[in-house]
Amino acid sequence: MDEPVLLTGAGGHVGQVILERLGDKYDWRLLYHSQPAEEPNHPYVTGEVQDPADVRPAMEGAGAVVHLAGDPRPEAPWDSVLPNNIDGTHTIYDLAVQEGVDRVVFASSNHAVGAAETDKRTPDIYRSEDDFRLDGTEYPRPGNKYGISKATGEIIGRYYHDTYGISVCNIRIGNLNEEYPPVDYDRGQAMWLSPRDCAQIHDRALRADYGFEIVYGISDNDSKYYSIERAREVLGYEPQDNAAEWDGTEKLSE
Amino acid sequence: MDEPVLLTGAGGHVGQVILERLGDKYDWRLLYHSQPAEEPNHPYVTGEVQDPADVRPAMEGAGAVVHLAGDPRPEAPWDSVLPNNIDGTHTIYDLAVQEGVDRVVFASSNHAVGAAETDKRTPDIYRSEDDFRLDGTEYPRPGNKYGISKATGEIIGRYYHDTYGISVCNIRIGNLNEEYPPVDYDRGQAMWLSPRDCAQIHDRALRADYGFEIVYGISDNDSKYYSIERAREVLGYEPQDNAAEWDGTEKLSE
Repeated sequence: MDEPVLLTGAGGHVGQVILERLGDKYDWRLLYHSQPAEEPNHPYVTGEVQDPADVRPAMEGAGAVVHLAGDPRPEAPWDSVLPNNIDGTHTIYDLAVQEGVDRVVFASSNHAVGAAETDKRTPDIYRSEDDFRLDGTEYPRPGNKYGISKATGEIIGRYYHDTYGISVCNIRIGNLNEEYPPVDYDRGQAMWLSPRDCAQIHDRALRADYGFEIVYGISDNDSKYYSIERAREVLGYEPQDNAAEWDGTEKLSE
Repeated sequence: MDEPVLLTGAGGHVGQVILERLGDKYDWRLLYHSQPAEEPNHPYVTGEVQDPADVRPAMEGAGAVVHLAGDPRPEAPWDSVLPNNIDGTHTIYDLAVQEGVDRVVFASSNHAVGAAETDKRTPDIYRSEDDFRLDGTEYPRPGNKYGISKATGEIIGRYYHDTYGISVCNIRIGNLNEEYPPVDYDRGQAMWLSPRDCAQIHDRALRADYGFEIVYGISDNDSKYYSIERAREVLGYEPQDNAAEWDGTEKLSE
């Protein structure tokens, strides 16, 4: 990818992990919601993701977008996810078409299918011995309004892929925790995404060939109930981490 | 259904067909977008479907909702479907929960899956001899922004069903034409929904037992590429019409 890559939501958790680990690998342009505390190492704009006037200067001339911006709270109310997540994602795709950008990597979420974790399935699906898997072909089943907004973002991408041919990769991100898996939280361990695996899957999604994809962004955890086969096959994702291998003391090494 | 039924979008095409044929069968309460030209035969309010203050008086005490309101144009722009269709559908479900209404019948649309009609499949799928079928379990694939809004409406319903136990029936309505199928329009004939079949499927959806359903609302057309098996099975839908039986002269009889 020789052209610049627009990263929206650069100040968020996923954005920071990507910049820390892939900062030198791409010619980034950053969209922040508010002025960052430290001066970024890349050109940036600040503004509302749903406002084309704010986003357009960063979209012009880009070759791809990693779209992370939005209200990241699982408990976010409708009045926030409607403008920030749903309208914001539409703005990104609409500007991408206008500016000739032909690849969007979208941060979807495990919450797009959170209600698939029914009372009948839990807590068994959080255990290694259970072989239930979601594989990304399922009809969306959000467990909160944030999840509705992420499922809608995927469908907006489906439309833009079908109509304009944009390559779209939706990564249903699991639980991006620090250098070790969530402690005493089975669900979080099952869907842990280590920082280096997070960086890798986004890197691969910026390079692989595909049309429209929905993949799960998690590490290769023994207790996973999201399949990572599609991410392996289409993106060449090779996760390095597994929540079960953490011995409870040190951070995982690079 | 002894309790009142709220019908939103009462002034639209589907609403008028339902009121003409089921007007005496339910204790309707109507929501119009603007003042109707003729005084309705049922209590009504006028207002914006996305404004809880406008809708609440009609929701209070209702036993079910038939939610049709929204911008009905396939070519409707994002700036219209975002408030009218997406936010409006959220308002309906949110008020339903607040007012203890436990059944919503939602007018989804063939446009929620319009882009499934790929160049490789068309025009063959519009022919009787082609046996391709969509059955409602597919991941959404809208062909326009109206379709995005309808797919999102379905997913909002999925959330409210999973979270609050509301019975939700999404009817992906085909081509509701007058008393005869669209002329010289293969696609429209394949997805024709006759007025009496339209009334029947909504009537059944107000009476049947189900949790969350997505069914296709079309007549039993020889050239259909939407399965009506699920509507038959779950709703007891028994379509009376078939576009292939129209002889090109008279309207179909009652």
